[in-house]
Amino acid sequence: MAGLLIALEGPDGCGKTTQIELLKDRLEREGYEVIVTREPGGTKISEKIREILLDNDNNEMGSCCEALLYAASRAQLVEEVIKPALAEGKMIICDRFVHSSLVYQGIGRGLGIKEIEGINSFALNGLKSDLTIMIDIDFEKGLDRKRNQKKLDRLENSGNDFHKKVYNGYQYIKNEIKDIEVVDGAMSKEEVHEKIFSLIENKIR
Amino acid sequence: MAGLLIALEGPDGCGKTTQIELLKDRLEREGYEVIVTREPGGTKISEKIREILLDNDNNEMGSCCEALLYAASRAQLVEEVIKPALAEGKMIICDRFVHSSLVYQGIGRGLGIKEIEGINSFALNGLKSDLTIMIDIDFEKGLDRKRNQKKLDRLENSGNDFHKKVYNGYQYIKNEIKDIEVVDGAMSKEEVHEKIFSLIENKIR
Repeated sequence: MAGLLIALEGPDGCGKTTQIELLKDRLEREGYEVIVTREPGGTKISEKIREILLDNDNNEMGSCCEALLYAASRAQLVEEVIKPALAEGKMIICDRFVHSSLVYQGIGRGLGIKEIEGINSFALNGLKSDLTIMIDIDFEKGLDRKRNQKKLDRLENSGNDFHKKVYNGYQYIKNEIKDIEVVDGAMSKEEVHEKIFSLIENKIR
Repeated sequence: MAGLLIALEGPDGCGKTTQIELLKDRLEREGYEVIVTREPGGTKISEKIREILLDNDNNEMGSCCEALLYAASRAQLVEEVIKPALAEGKMIICDRFVHSSLVYQGIGRGLGIKEIEGINSFALNGLKSDLTIMIDIDFEKGLDRKRNQKKLDRLENSGNDFHKKVYNGYQYIKNEIKDIEVVDGAMSKEEVHEKIFSLIENKIR
């Protein structure tokens, strides 16, 4: 069996974490070895970069620095984890990948989609994801779900204006970027899971 | 008086540190406020990035991650220190700047000059240095000087092959990149200083 690189995307509170757990179990029952990565992070070096990025103490961080740190964390994850795992036929589920940077830094921070694509193309060093799935959800519903969590990091604390831009950014890439599959997050979690799994089955066959 | 952004470049052991001290004193005597920056580092966030980059424990770091971390550290330095200081008419002396990345990551790590220019153009966000000065020195002489220092970091420990590539990289940009002034590091430190200061005087007038 050949491995696949699957990215799960969507605004905060869209249900990615739940769906990734369901998807991992299902793929393992199908006989795949599955690796779930989180971003920023996923390697020793990337976790150190994560600490800098999410520390509420680093409020003076500029947008270009932020975007480059995300790309650096991703570059290490790609080289150390994703490329070797794909070569061994494993399934990789990425909890956020390049599209999150397009939305959060390209649109949310206003740095531009093309500019963020440029530094991420450098970070990926030739790699492309096989499937990007976005779980779509209402702005208010997602925010409510997220606020019920206890501790928010630097990016989650960026204020409503930023989160609205991020939400609009997801709507933009949903409509404008062709290589993304959209799943309606308003369905039950079982329905969302079945839809996601069928998209992956189409890629496997 | 208008500020200038001056970058000092050159292979390890070329005498940059000594020359920066002499230059800072001279410019201050001339009435300028002078800021000296070191890379990677120079802001709270950039110093945290520096720790990751230079830690001998992080030997598994990939070249793309390394290049992006240097760019991230530089982006923060530009936004937090360099741009505000230039706006106040200060003199900024950079102990290494973009050309070091072209040489160390573009040539030393083999990532390509154009690719490294791309991520650094993103990091600089419109800023350009006013003057880049490279102190040129023999490969063996520079290495000997550097080896007499007691503790080497991850990059300095990268082996002779890497250092030879870096040295050749400096020879390459010396000949191929037009916006760089070359000073012969074999002269006495006083002569090197006079040459460097005259290059700056030409820019001020």
